[in-house]
Amino acid sequence: MTIAVDNWIEQIRAGDIRAISRAVSAIENRDREAEEILRHLFPFTGNAYRIGVTGAPGTGKSTLVDRLAGLYRGERKTVGVIAVDPSSPFTGGAILGDRVRMQSHATDDGIFIRSMATRGYLGGLAQATGDTALLLDAAGKQIVMIETVGVGQGEIEIVRLADCTLVVLMPGMGDDVQNLKAGLMEIGDIFVLNKSDREGADRFDQQLRAILQLVPERNGWKPPVVRTIASENKGIDELARQIARFRAHFERLQDRPAREIAHWKEWLLRLLQSRLMERVVGDHMNAAEFESLATAVAERRKDPYAAVNEILARAGLGDKS
Amino acid sequence: MTIAVDNWIEQIRAGDIRAISRAVSAIENRDREAEEILRHLFPFTGNAYRIGVTGAPGTGKSTLVDRLAGLYRGERKTVGVIAVDPSSPFTGGAILGDRVRMQSHATDDGIFIRSMATRGYLGGLAQATGDTALLLDAAGKQIVMIETVGVGQGEIEIVRLADCTLVVLMPGMGDDVQNLKAGLMEIGDIFVLNKSDREGADRFDQQLRAILQLVPERNGWKPPVVRTIASENKGIDELARQIARFRAHFERLQDRPAREIAHWKEWLLRLLQSRLMERVVGDHMNAAEFESLATAVAERRKDPYAAVNEILARAGLGDKS
Repeated sequence: MTIAVDNWIEQIRAGDIRAISRAVSAIENRDREAEEILRHLFPFTGNAYRIGVTGAPGTGKSTLVDRLAGLYRGERKTVGVIAVDPSSPFTGGAILGDRVRMQSHATDDGIFIRSMATRGYLGGLAQATGDTALLLDAAGKQIVMIETVGVGQGEIEIVRLADCTLVVLMPGMGDDVQNLKAGLMEIGDIFVLNKSDREGADRFDQQLRAILQLVPERNGWKPPVVRTIASENKGIDELARQIARFRAHFERLQDRPAREIAHWKEWLLRLLQSRLMERVVGDHMNAAEFESLATAVAERRKDPYAAVNEILARAGLGDKS
Repeated sequence: MTIAVDNWIEQIRAGDIRAISRAVSAIENRDREAEEILRHLFPFTGNAYRIGVTGAPGTGKSTLVDRLAGLYRGERKTVGVIAVDPSSPFTGGAILGDRVRMQSHATDDGIFIRSMATRGYLGGLAQATGDTALLLDAAGKQIVMIETVGVGQGEIEIVRLADCTLVVLMPGMGDDVQNLKAGLMEIGDIFVLNKSDREGADRFDQQLRAILQLVPERNGWKPPVVRTIASENKGIDELARQIARFRAHFERLQDRPAREIAHWKEWLLRLLQSRLMERVVGDHMNAAEFESLATAVAERRKDPYAAVNEILARAGLGDKS
């Protein structure tokens, strides 16, 4: 380890915002040094409580995360926030401009906030988000919140990183609760009915509770519904109480080791996937060869399964059947 | 090729609904015979026009797809519909019950409708959806519609399969259009403002058009906004007209080969990814070994990067640096 990296790691562990920020950039850009840093930081991880926050655009997730962060800061807990924006693979950034977030925390060293957008190929975002969560964990953040728009498969991958998942809903999200996707129901440990002063909130709330009755309990936990108006800071303390209750519930069960192992299995698969792509495509095939293979498929001179078998064979992973 | 498979392929090409249905199941279950069938069908693909339809839950995508399918059937075009439900990795199926779709088409042989849910590991759904789109193409469907809930990264992968992408919105999806994610703006070739008889539609429409002014043109195409009330079959013909206009626009440009090659590059990467995982994890490591590796990581005895390097080394893909 060079002295520069050594210093960097020390600064990260001390919670230095600039050092953390540089490391997140290294993770996003898939710099070689990102892995080196993460390997050295890894033994210091495992202490943060990860809260996933997901929901459709417009439900007020960002404001909710902001208020929850404020509450935890009030309790002197250090907080990290990762806002995942998976929606811009074309320009590599948000054309509407990254909203200016959480200005109220701008002078607070105990909170680190970062938006992340899609880079690289499939699964890259989940990978980068996971690495960043580890980084913030090692940097001593007691609470790490991961906010994603969803719920699609990519978001589910991301949310599975969390210890506790909040699903944010609002009245008027469709004709009624029946429209909500089943997966949203299954993923939520706590349901937040935000903007609950809006018309239709009572009806929505009732329907939501009725549907939650149908969701099978997981380890004796019945997901509660918490009504909030994040913009007015209403219901945030009740939400924090429910999160604490959930955390205590699972700590009492002592199934954390099993959950952790499941978590790491998924993590390893994801990491393996991105490494494999780098090795096999990067090392055994140049861009021109890949282009000509894709052209042969586009012109129906070769089928895609045969093309992929060719790539695998070059990497010494040919079909043995 | 066995006689059974041979017959099966003939039946698929003839548009036999049961034969197609069996093949979709084989694709979903990753049966060995799925690949065999797809390889034989591949030369007969490339004729379908693929329409991607995406948008948040509750915007009325299914109804819209239903009505659009009805319109194309009225023009004697054969139609395939793939409704992707990426949201249920936990139970493997929708707990609220798969909505009964498009009953109006139940007796029509010219339309094939199928819901697909997540199976297997990451990227599996995009893979299965793509394979099914190829299958329906080879089965002679002139229009293949792919409906997804989104927009997350998984959905973007799926939508990129399409020749033309509709983004479905509705009034009241948030405080205003500013809340829409940038990626949604970039992905849409045509924007559908459904439920356009609702309060706030005019304001939403205006804002949407204002924002679309900011989106860079792609190949001289300015995405139009079409107002619909799908439940009343209103605006569907205008929507079909815009789709036809988009199709003609790109056919005039004659950039189909370039788009096709880009499409197949992405497809090959995706296929490669799933094959690599099968080969490397499946062939070189059993479940118990993988479990013990994940346990070592969970207990911080080993870092995840080292663990993955071990798996790669076993598969003969170790780090050469």
